Amino acid sequence: MDDLLHVDLKDVRPATAETDVLVIGFGAAGTCAAHAAREAGAEVIAIERSAGAGGAAALAEGIIYLGGGTPVQQACGFDDSVENMTAYLMAACGPEPDEAKVAAYANGSLDHFDWLVARGVEFDARLDIETQMAPRDTHGLVWSGGENAWPFSEMATPAPRGHLAKTKNSTGWLLMKILAEACEAIGVETVYDTRVTALVVDGDRVVGVVASSYGEERVYLARRGVVLTAGGFIWNDDMLRRHAPTLLRGTWKVGTEADDGRAIEMAQSVGARVKNMHVGEVSLPIIPPRDLIQGIIVNGHGQRFINEDTYMGRVGQAALYDQDATCFLVVDEAAYQPNWMGLTATWVCETVGELESEMGLPAGSLEATVDLYNRHAATHDDPMFHKAPDWVRPLIPPLGAFDLRPGVAPYAPFTLGGLETSVAGEVIGLGGEAIPGLFAAGRTTAGICSFGYASGLSIGDSTMFGRFAGHSAAGA
Amino acid sequence: MDDLLHVDLKDVRPATAETDVLVIGFGAAGTCAAHAAREAGAEVIAIERSAGAGGAAALAEGIIYLGGGTPVQQACGFDDSVENMTAYLMAACGPEPDEAKVAAYANGSLDHFDWLVARGVEFDARLDIETQMAPRDTHGLVWSGGENAWPFSEMATPAPRGHLAKTKNSTGWLLMKILAEACEAIGVETVYDTRVTALVVDGDRVVGVVASSYGEERVYLARRGVVLTAGGFIWNDDMLRRHAPTLLRGTWKVGTEADDGRAIEMAQSVGARVKNMHVGEVSLPIIPPRDLIQGIIVNGHGQRFINEDTYMGRVGQAALYDQDATCFLVVDEAAYQPNWMGLTATWVCETVGELESEMGLPAGSLEATVDLYNRHAATHDDPMFHKAPDWVRPLIPPLGAFDLRPGVAPYAPFTLGGLETSVAGEVIGLGGEAIPGLFAAGRTTAGICSFGYASGLSIGDSTMFGRFAGHSAAGA
Repeated sequence: MDDLLHVDLKDVRPATAETDVLVIGFGAAGTCAAHAAREAGAEVIAIERSAGAGGAAALAEGIIYLGGGTPVQQACGFDDSVENMTAYLMAACGPEPDEAKVAAYANGSLDHFDWLVARGVEFDARLDIETQMAPRDTHGLVWSGGENAWPFSEMATPAPRGHLAKTKNSTGWLLMKILAEACEAIGVETVYDTRVTALVVDGDRVVGVVASSYGEERVYLARRGVVLTAGGFIWNDDMLRRHAPTLLRGTWKVGTEADDGRAIEMAQSVGARVKNMHVGEVSLPIIPPRDLIQGIIVNGHGQRFINEDTYMGRVGQAALYDQDATCFLVVDEAAYQPNWMGLTATWVCETVGELESEMGLPAGSLEATVDLYNRHAATHDDPMFHKAPDWVRPLIPPLGAFDLRPGVAPYAPFTLGGLETSVAGEVIGLGGEAIPGLFAAGRTTAGICSFGYASGLSIGDSTMFGRFAGHSAAGA
Repeated sequence: MDDLLHVDLKDVRPATAETDVLVIGFGAAGTCAAHAAREAGAEVIAIERSAGAGGAAALAEGIIYLGGGTPVQQACGFDDSVENMTAYLMAACGPEPDEAKVAAYANGSLDHFDWLVARGVEFDARLDIETQMAPRDTHGLVWSGGENAWPFSEMATPAPRGHLAKTKNSTGWLLMKILAEACEAIGVETVYDTRVTALVVDGDRVVGVVASSYGEERVYLARRGVVLTAGGFIWNDDMLRRHAPTLLRGTWKVGTEADDGRAIEMAQSVGARVKNMHVGEVSLPIIPPRDLIQGIIVNGHGQRFINEDTYMGRVGQAALYDQDATCFLVVDEAAYQPNWMGLTATWVCETVGELESEMGLPAGSLEATVDLYNRHAATHDDPMFHKAPDWVRPLIPPLGAFDLRPGVAPYAPFTLGGLETSVAGEVIGLGGEAIPGLFAAGRTTAGICSFGYASGLSIGDSTMFGRFAGHSAAGA
């Protein structure tokens, strides 16, 4: 039975356990779904295939994208509003992001902040301007989506929205510890080391799951609903090949081996729709230090293709999807430092001509790019890609170039496509109807982003829409 | 029942008809599937929703991509081989094209040529070098995939493989007329004006379809197999939004309103896998005349991004997927002519600087591009994008620029993603197994191309793999 993605209730063995709501996967979305279902009065069992809670979020930096004027934003001196956050998200998460989810996300952001705080998440209300990722101290706020860079800086009032739980270094682990403990405190039952392999259906309704634990097959039944919060499919190369081959070139998969897409396919086997399956976020974490932004990023033809001061996830997507995963960062002596990962310049030359030759770029290509850049940079102008004036000044040889191709630099992808769900977390079927008894959230689903991304949106939409899905399942 | 994608045999009304093999859709793939099934001894009913045969292929130019040394290629003086054709296809249809299908396609190409000739398709063994599409006379061969342009010219011995049935002007109609008549001649039964809405299943086996004809619901049952050859989903904007949003910017959909993806979703509802759903071919038919290739194509930053002598379908894909659908063709007086569609230069200026200003390009951007291009063009060299030396010479002002943005120039897309099938045409399920009784070919399926394309590959793989699928269904 191990190869089946769903089985009929009449064909399964007696249930190991029966409850109101089953939550499959106990990461960012799963902990929040379980919590919300339990709070809504349901008996909840959360089934997790690894030995502990946390999922991919526990390995991440733990940024949560929140705005609309959170206490942390206010304490750091930033005005924000639901409308302003919505304007940014509609521009940055497209093309054509899920408008209903964007609206719900922006509208629910302040409430979600309070919800997290009430469960024990603390935020140190200080902004770290140096990074788009985890600060090196306990700072609770970062610019995590290029809000203050073109074109978003012209489409919404810039405000940083990357919130981090108060701890040094990687904070995803702390966030997930708090969320998992909050579940325990209210009586969510957890089952670890148990891998769900199939849905159980009764007619057109999903009523449970088949799971495997240390070789033993188990059946769990749900009186009200099953919530799939089992991650994406970045760890499944066959699925990537079929749906998102571009991401196969990523060198540093963001996720765990549990991100194998099985939950997506289980849902598909009972008629679920998928959406945006080709899309992945691809971080190319060049900075800190921010000073490197004074350089220019060029492709394999020696051409610039993006404003260097934008979010590094946008640079990574552009490089991998549009530039054949070939790019370089060219800096002069005044801006040069090894970056936070210890990456250093692969080539250093006295002239631009020598540098382009050493780099193997077409003759004259980098010279033409630097000439044009410098001509405008003399007046802090960048008419080509609109880098902010503060970062724009002529590059003065000698120049160095970082090799930012896969294998040298890390391309860190994870999948953004998955099941189509309503704001309430219902899984939508091929015919457009909600599938009875089935709910989902997190990277098992297509979230608010159709392509564009900002750091913190994955844990952000996983936790918020996880809550909604859990609540819906409890009421089903 | 109209919203259901599949229904149980026990729930359907008595069958209108029962046969061995049902073929759904009577275009390029369907006619060949029906023919092959009938030749294999099966009773065949082909159900077509429009009033006649032909599908999208009848509206197309009717190019069939064939090689390996066809009589037409030989008569025109070109050597080709299975190995050479395979090398080209593996390079041009990637990244990571379906290797088994490429091998079968190249291996079967000469036999397929003979098969078509035996059914009455005639070819005029003359090469038209001026076009990548339909010749203006009865020529039977064109360069239809950039085989003689970089990088493919370095990866395989260039040979033209775009074959056209002998007729003036659009030849898809003639090809389809011949293939449909060949079916009639051997006793394929055809049912027109009948739209299939659902599959009929008996346990895990597909055994028929539900259809609608002038408001009357009908049931057709198949003793051996159902073959889905009902086109792609370019006419379904909701599906495009979910799977291939880039293609929504296409201005000239290639297909018919029957390309609504229903067959793909019917198969998904019984557990079929899909593949490459984000991918579309996007023709940007700039030439003829070929002399325009002496110009340069630039993006919204005034930068070149491709060798102008490649296949115009590659230019269209690159422009739409990677360059935000913004590109322009810049030519000088010596190369300037209105193109075959009557497109003329939107801007004409005495200097490059004036032109870039009129076009709204960043100051200095086009100047830098033309300077660099001309510097190398003086020696017929193009180190940036490797346009062939014959087309490379300095551009001498005054210059004109064609506006090639959507709405001005036609972007002609169709979908290349669809059901995953084996070479034999079996539809593959989510678990990797063939779905009993279900077969498919043509644009309902993901063919040999994972992204890259050449004109004639869609009718080529539809007709050849249509034959294989029909044969398999008859033997099932």
